[in-house]
Amino acid sequence: MSTSGKPRHGQTPMFPRIFGHEAGGIVESVGEGVTDLAPGDHVLPVFTGECKDCAHCKSEESNMCNLLRINTDRGVMIGDGKSRFSINGKPIYHFVGTSTFSEYTVVHVGCLAKINPAAPLDKVCVLSCGISTGLGATLNVAKPTKGSTVAVFGLGAVGLAAAEGARIAGASRIIGVDLNAGRFHEAKKFGVNEFVNPKDHSRPVKEVLAEMTDGGVDRSIECTGNVDAMISAFECVHDGWGVAVLVGVPHKDAVFKTHPMNLLNERTLKGTFFGNYKPRSDLPSVVEMYMNKELELEKFITHEVPFSEINKAFDYMLQGVGLRCIIRMDG
Amino acid sequence: MSTSGKPRHGQTPMFPRIFGHEAGGIVESVGEGVTDLAPGDHVLPVFTGECKDCAHCKSEESNMCNLLRINTDRGVMIGDGKSRFSINGKPIYHFVGTSTFSEYTVVHVGCLAKINPAAPLDKVCVLSCGISTGLGATLNVAKPTKGSTVAVFGLGAVGLAAAEGARIAGASRIIGVDLNAGRFHEAKKFGVNEFVNPKDHSRPVKEVLAEMTDGGVDRSIECTGNVDAMISAFECVHDGWGVAVLVGVPHKDAVFKTHPMNLLNERTLKGTFFGNYKPRSDLPSVVEMYMNKELELEKFITHEVPFSEINKAFDYMLQGVGLRCIIRMDG
Repeated sequence: MSTSGKPRHGQTPMFPRIFGHEAGGIVESVGEGVTDLAPGDHVLPVFTGECKDCAHCKSEESNMCNLLRINTDRGVMIGDGKSRFSINGKPIYHFVGTSTFSEYTVVHVGCLAKINPAAPLDKVCVLSCGISTGLGATLNVAKPTKGSTVAVFGLGAVGLAAAEGARIAGASRIIGVDLNAGRFHEAKKFGVNEFVNPKDHSRPVKEVLAEMTDGGVDRSIECTGNVDAMISAFECVHDGWGVAVLVGVPHKDAVFKTHPMNLLNERTLKGTFFGNYKPRSDLPSVVEMYMNKELELEKFITHEVPFSEINKAFDYMLQGVGLRCIIRMDG
Repeated sequence: MSTSGKPRHGQTPMFPRIFGHEAGGIVESVGEGVTDLAPGDHVLPVFTGECKDCAHCKSEESNMCNLLRINTDRGVMIGDGKSRFSINGKPIYHFVGTSTFSEYTVVHVGCLAKINPAAPLDKVCVLSCGISTGLGATLNVAKPTKGSTVAVFGLGAVGLAAAEGARIAGASRIIGVDLNAGRFHEAKKFGVNEFVNPKDHSRPVKEVLAEMTDGGVDRSIECTGNVDAMISAFECVHDGWGVAVLVGVPHKDAVFKTHPMNLLNERTLKGTFFGNYKPRSDLPSVVEMYMNKELELEKFITHEVPFSEINKAFDYMLQGVGLRCIIRMDG
């Protein structure tokens, strides 16, 4: 890995840098010209932003801000191209505009969602990336109606958040699809009430789902990033009205393939980025969903460690243990 | 071609049969149990139907009736499995439920749209297939907003109807894409105000369109059925909000391929059948659009022949001359 401090695009990201993005915090001070936030405000830093001025921010449909869209290669503030961190006079770079594995960080105002100060930061912090991604994929993009049937491919935290969205929307059948049968028990807490393990069937999973649902599911949400799962997730939706939403990030060489008749038979294929939530405009209302007890966040939080033991959190992640581990800065 | 009268599925359709489907007519008599229509009613026979009772008919989103969906192999009435035509005691088979190359035909009530009797049948007849398909692809599926940019791939009658839909929706830029530059002049009548001939460019057409539109068109409608055009039509829409709608019927071995990131960047891919119009519920209102002078049909009708000269109409079609040729039964 490079330690030169210079990014090599497409090769290795820049180092040294401060990682961390799914977080919650309190504004300590604001820079010149910042009027939307003041010291003491509670905020969720987000890995992608909302400048409120570009074509995407002005569109009701997009959240892919031209100015502040996620950029893993950029390690500096966008205004002056410089880092705000240093050690022994040498820069330490930023990470996706947030760098939250730190007691203090510097974030562009466009990447901070101001939220209800009564919301517990050690719970709603999980809304600043994966949970909102899955939840929004269902609520904002797939939009299942009450009583409908929803398939969720991949029962990690994002998939379970997609299932939680289906539960909130009132879907009556929420079918979890995963190669790991061990995930079904946990998934029940998120509204998943049927389970298909493709390994248990000799037929393609889309045929299994079509048979279970008299022709196909109403909505499907793909949260694995595996391109074969994406194709199955699309082809398993019902003709006439089915909508498939891709969430999982694919391999750079992946190719999505299907027969065009699958589309002409009135299936819809969509993808989403951060659940189509505009970070500043929309996240405060997601926090309110939690405050109103409509959205349950506690069940996503399976571990908690003090900052001094942050490497334990990486171990949990690498071992696939639990869903989300809170790293307490005050711990 | 088979003349045995028995269909060979996937090989040749059944013969002899009476062709014809895009038409208008007047009810002469109704069968037992028919209450929705009475003699004298003006109707558009449609190649696909609406039983009003199946899951598709009950869905607000689908028009793909389970009972009466187009079936090119079926040559009989659906109720008793028999033909209503014969010659010398031998059956002549039906075609897509309509068989309108005939002064009299027998059509399932579910395949007849009852329309305003004041509407001229020799004009609104063109609404019973291709024109509604293109128009509905835009108005019902792509749904461009006022001022938006729409690309139409393929400027035959269906593509021009899609452009007409974009004109009606108030799109400000309607970009026609066709390999035949000769079509642009005619296309102007349908609101097409820019033209791209992929043959004029060494770059892929999606790049040409992206450059013309600062990143991509808002909506695209694919009316050729060529799978490469389908892929271009999808990949040329803007990230964040672009919607591509497939209309053209592909080759049976065609494969639609794209990188999944094109979807994850918030592009939507849809297909449509008969412009998502439910034949009985929706066509009457399309006729009204014509009656209100919102929709212009005359410009689609370039030829007219008496029934006795029907083969001239086939010649026009085979030569690619004009758009629609009215075959007058009273001529």
